[in-house]
Amino acid sequence: MSGDTLIIINPNSSDAVTAGIDRAVDPLRRLGIPIRCLTLAEGPPGIESQKQADLTIAPMLKLAAAQKDAAGYVIACFGDPGLNALRDQTTLPVVGIQEAAVMSALTLGQRFGVIAILPASIPRHLRAFGAMGVLGRLAGDRALGLGVADLADPDKSLAAMIATGKRLRDEDGADVLIMGCAGMAHYRATLETETGLPVVEPSQAGAALALSHIALKQSHKGARHA
Amino acid sequence: MSGDTLIIINPNSSDAVTAGIDRAVDPLRRLGIPIRCLTLAEGPPGIESQKQADLTIAPMLKLAAAQKDAAGYVIACFGDPGLNALRDQTTLPVVGIQEAAVMSALTLGQRFGVIAILPASIPRHLRAFGAMGVLGRLAGDRALGLGVADLADPDKSLAAMIATGKRLRDEDGADVLIMGCAGMAHYRATLETETGLPVVEPSQAGAALALSHIALKQSHKGARHA
Amino acid sequence: MSGDTLIIINPNSSDAVTAGIDRAVDPLRRLGIPIRCLTLAEGPPGIESQKQADLTIAPMLKLAAAQKDAAGYVIACFGDPGLNALRDQTTLPVVGIQEAAVMSALTLGQRFGVIAILPASIPRHLRAFGAMGVLGRLAGDRALGLGVADLADPDKSLAAMIATGKRLRDEDGADVLIMGCAGMAHYRATLETETGLPVVEPSQAGAALALSHIALKQSHKGARHA
Amino acid sequence: MSGDTLIIINPNSSDAVTAGIDRAVDPLRRLGIPIRCLTLAEGPPGIESQKQADLTIAPMLKLAAAQKDAAGYVIACFGDPGLNALRDQTTLPVVGIQEAAVMSALTLGQRFGVIAILPASIPRHLRAFGAMGVLGRLAGDRALGLGVADLADPDKSLAAMIATGKRLRDEDGADVLIMGCAGMAHYRATLETETGLPVVEPSQAGAALALSHIALKQSHKGARHA
Amino acid sequence: MSGDTLIIINPNSSDAVTAGIDRAVDPLRRLGIPIRCLTLAEGPPGIESQKQADLTIAPMLKLAAAQKDAAGYVIACFGDPGLNALRDQTTLPVVGIQEAAVMSALTLGQRFGVIAILPASIPRHLRAFGAMGVLGRLAGDRALGLGVADLADPDKSLAAMIATGKRLRDEDGADVLIMGCAGMAHYRATLETETGLPVVEPSQAGAALALSHIALKQSHKGARHA
Amino acid sequence: MSGDTLIIINPNSSDAVTAGIDRAVDPLRRLGIPIRCLTLAEGPPGIESQKQADLTIAPMLKLAAAQKDAAGYVIACFGDPGLNALRDQTTLPVVGIQEAAVMSALTLGQRFGVIAILPASIPRHLRAFGAMGVLGRLAGDRALGLGVADLADPDKSLAAMIATGKRLRDEDGADVLIMGCAGMAHYRATLETETGLPVVEPSQAGAALALSHIALKQSHKGARHA
Repeated sequence: MSGDTLIIINPNSSDAVTAGIDRAVDPLRRLGIPIRCLTLAEGPPGIESQKQADLTIAPMLKLAAAQKDAAGYVIACFGDPGLNALRDQTTLPVVGIQEAAVMSALTLGQRFGVIAILPASIPRHLRAFGAMGVLGRLAGDRALGLGVADLADPDKSLAAMIATGKRLRDEDGADVLIMGCAGMAHYRATLETETGLPVVEPSQAGAALALSHIALKQSHKGARHA
Repeated sequence: MSGDTLIIINPNSSDAVTAGIDRAVDPLRRLGIPIRCLTLAEGPPGIESQKQADLTIAPMLKLAAAQKDAAGYVIACFGDPGLNALRDQTTLPVVGIQEAAVMSALTLGQRFGVIAILPASIPRHLRAFGAMGVLGRLAGDRALGLGVADLADPDKSLAAMIATGKRLRDEDGADVLIMGCAGMAHYRATLETETGLPVVEPSQAGAALALSHIALKQSHKGARHA
Repeated sequence: MSGDTLIIINPNSSDAVTAGIDRAVDPLRRLGIPIRCLTLAEGPPGIESQKQADLTIAPMLKLAAAQKDAAGYVIACFGDPGLNALRDQTTLPVVGIQEAAVMSALTLGQRFGVIAILPASIPRHLRAFGAMGVLGRLAGDRALGLGVADLADPDKSLAAMIATGKRLRDEDGADVLIMGCAGMAHYRATLETETGLPVVEPSQAGAALALSHIALKQSHKGARHA
Repeated sequence: MSGDTLIIINPNSSDAVTAGIDRAVDPLRRLGIPIRCLTLAEGPPGIESQKQADLTIAPMLKLAAAQKDAAGYVIACFGDPGLNALRDQTTLPVVGIQEAAVMSALTLGQRFGVIAILPASIPRHLRAFGAMGVLGRLAGDRALGLGVADLADPDKSLAAMIATGKRLRDEDGADVLIMGCAGMAHYRATLETETGLPVVEPSQAGAALALSHIALKQSHKGARHA
Repeated sequence: MSGDTLIIINPNSSDAVTAGIDRAVDPLRRLGIPIRCLTLAEGPPGIESQKQADLTIAPMLKLAAAQKDAAGYVIACFGDPGLNALRDQTTLPVVGIQEAAVMSALTLGQRFGVIAILPASIPRHLRAFGAMGVLGRLAGDRALGLGVADLADPDKSLAAMIATGKRLRDEDGADVLIMGCAGMAHYRATLETETGLPVVEPSQAGAALALSHIALKQSHKGARHA
Repeated sequence: MSGDTLIIINPNSSDAVTAGIDRAVDPLRRLGIPIRCLTLAEGPPGIESQKQADLTIAPMLKLAAAQKDAAGYVIACFGDPGLNALRDQTTLPVVGIQEAAVMSALTLGQRFGVIAILPASIPRHLRAFGAMGVLGRLAGDRALGLGVADLADPDKSLAAMIATGKRLRDEDGADVLIMGCAGMAHYRATLETETGLPVVEPSQAGAALALSHIALKQSHKGARHA
């Protein structure tokens, strides 16, 4: 009983972030499958802790269930909150952008580096990479080192991303970088140019993977329930 | 100086296999990027050893270089012969179907099982999964256990695939299966139905990943050389 | 501003399970720290999926916050739902019974085997063991293979536990067993006798670890916030 | 035929170290199980090599066997010399402080850092962490970098511990620290305050784990021999 | 101040085992370096536990120190008791046969299988393979399943070795086998023929590695102490 | 139908490199087995990419097949191009110097550091170490950081090797070093003296291992085909 549209849910309540995600995945609209990006009104303005992430799951599941034209879902928060819960709820393809970003990065370089927005996110990332079984290919995971005020300043954010990317490359040996957040795809080209490394923007990676699964009618457990 | 077409190279010399790959990736043509499948005339009829695989690299590199309209490449042999050599030759996206199949499978189940055609392939697979750093998520890798004559019989092949898939599921704990060969996509639906597990056909996974990279202009090392 | 009582929260709504947990941890009361076991009224009767587990987190966090005499917490569901969310909410020690059971088992044998109630739990377990970084010491994780009706029958449950424990020992090489559920401590002695292996009951392991942390005033991140 | 007392054996011959261990575990005496700390007269003044560690095993086994009121044992040297030999000798619970410290740390932070007294200990630690299967969660293992004279100076030792702890936190990404020696528990609070990280003192962790096993009547192999 | 002879120490007191080791390494005498095999009179008749293994270390270190013409040492017990202790005592090359057998096997097949004499040895092996960091390449470790009486019967021992080797090959996927004991080199050829797999006899592997180190003047830490 | 000579093939076309390899293995000639070093005329002057490495395989296989007196082979390029292809072609022992160097290093120190000539080689090394399953023991892999002109200057090369070795020791914790190239054995003694660490020269390690296999008549798959 599936529809034709890829649903991307931003589990924080920031419409600006959703708009950034929408622009990020726009190049993938040429592939012909409709894509709709939604903001989770019940989410926090930004997700900074495991507690905040976990509390988005209940409303996210409801929002997802309400999308009657869904052909598949992307949960667009680096951290993939509710990824397996949504897979329990639907047989449609469900993709988490963190998981998709890592899998894409593993085909673009031997060791991946992650640019985290906040230091407190790093243990969460490491738990996730451990669950994915890919820690052996992690070069490093480094935070921008900016305070809240500076994070709001695009110039300072971009400069910190470039500096962090270069440290991941030079000190940690990363061959490919992952942006540890959604909605900053507009920095991707500059970051690639400045570091000389391929850069994975996770909402793009997530949407691309979901579109592939939809085109190939491949769900996480669809077959089992068919 | 890139073109607009995804080039898929079957490094064995069997036109029937190439035709099977072409049919496998056909559903992805709706995404709008042209796809052309080529047979490597200099390849062996089938690739059964590391020696045979390695000897396809030189002619494959020439064939790839001759495709002036290429927007990216897929090497369509489970074993990914010449994957990194072709990445050394071009800045366009280059995808190996083994690597792509594994990365796709890792988003479809917690432990993947591999259906190998021949027992001698298994050590090669294990070396590759080790190099990918994903052995912790391998449930098992089992061969069909058919002789050459039986492999040519579609009914016996399919029956052996189903039996092998069920052993991977029941004895090894696989949640998702990978077909360890190219060009057998026509068995995929039956295999999913019979085992109740999602099944990844590697040439489909490889083509889908390459199309994503093309749509997002993402190459293994393009940025570094820009 | 901490109290003196260890709070153990059963995140399912079954008072019978809570009573089983209470009995399981009773031998630890001789250590002199009060222990109080609570049922999460908002939880499902049993937790069988990631979705059900994730949906317990919000009410569990509220229930935990309401315990003004808490000296520390144990989340008594194998799967540790909300473990890191509760650690974000309090600086008191927070222990998950799955994590504690694994760490205890690693000091009792070289390879641990897990007796899962349901097959669908196994991928969740594997994600958790991967996040813990201990997959290299997992012998196997096997489900009881009982239907719902048989699970309600104590004799059939115990017989299936013994049979599963013996398979983990004989086929998978386990030296120590973990019961993959809370509230079945009354089977522990029989299971040890029948298999000849040490058996870890997770709510006991969780309570014991939490009591140690309390006695040593050791919290997951208390120091950082002092 | 077990007694009621936890026996902690310091395998070096320094009574001052034994006294430090005794003070370290004193808070655990409130749990109601008697604890007795013994010095191994035949041990070296300090254990600095694998050779010295191995040579303590024979007299340690005799000393352990002579404790007729033992309910369990802790071997209180970071390095756990004779841990499995003593498990071969008795069915009572036997805990090594290195193993216990690591398992405790794994519940207090995602990546653990170890403060080694001497650089030569680090390869021994790495072999042990490898045998435990937890290397994926090691942030780093760094030595104090003090000469023998400075190690005898408490102020210099504490300053070096703090500096080493901060390097493990800032350069290696440790979320939790382990003191790589016994008998220095008096530095723990300061080290936690200065680094903002939880700190595991191994003789405390070892005693706490042993007390848990005793309270739950859980031995490494008791069940097998019952 | 080193001599010219490779000293191989059998740490059990069985002269028959020492004679078996001597015959095993005889083909390596053509390489021109004298080899002398010694029995540790103070050792047990056979080493069956970690306790027995650890108790050989002290007399072994004395025996080693007394060999004034030593150019290097091999400790010829699968389990490598005292390996690092002897490396602490001398700057000459010191090789353990377990370590050498594993390293040799890793160049002869992708996954190694171990034929253990007794089931109780397997946890010891696993700790050692973990410390070596090679568990990812272990196919399996299986015991012969013979009682003491049958182990003394050469025909039954060989038959059990062949059966165990075939299980390691067929059920566990081993490509290469390691005999988990010293002094049974005379079974090697038959075992290779019957299983069709290369078989590593550890005392041969240990002696060969030690001879290489001697020929290349390569010690574990000689350089550091020069 | 094997001969009596160990054949060492340098797959680049530089006779100077071959001469360096010949001198490196000269101390092993005292072991009594003839050793002949060959230059692959069809190879590139130096191997700097995976593409160059892969293209040596076809002519290397022919050169190997033409050596009628071969008792075994060593492929003397760090990267082991064609290692498994040659094993497919012959039942004689075939050793790659990268694999042999790593296995030797693992018996000489707990963590190995690799001195790479060029930064671009490091991802290749990491893929190989991953396939070998030994990444858990890698301390670090660092390039010399020299341009082509400086690489041709022996003094600058040696100074860079020493500096790189010291960084691997001091920043990465290496206990043993591997020279990531063939034919520079003349620097080994100085590098050991300057760093105080054992240093493995890979063509020596490869030749030593091959001689062991020949003396023990041990081939990668000889037994299977006998």
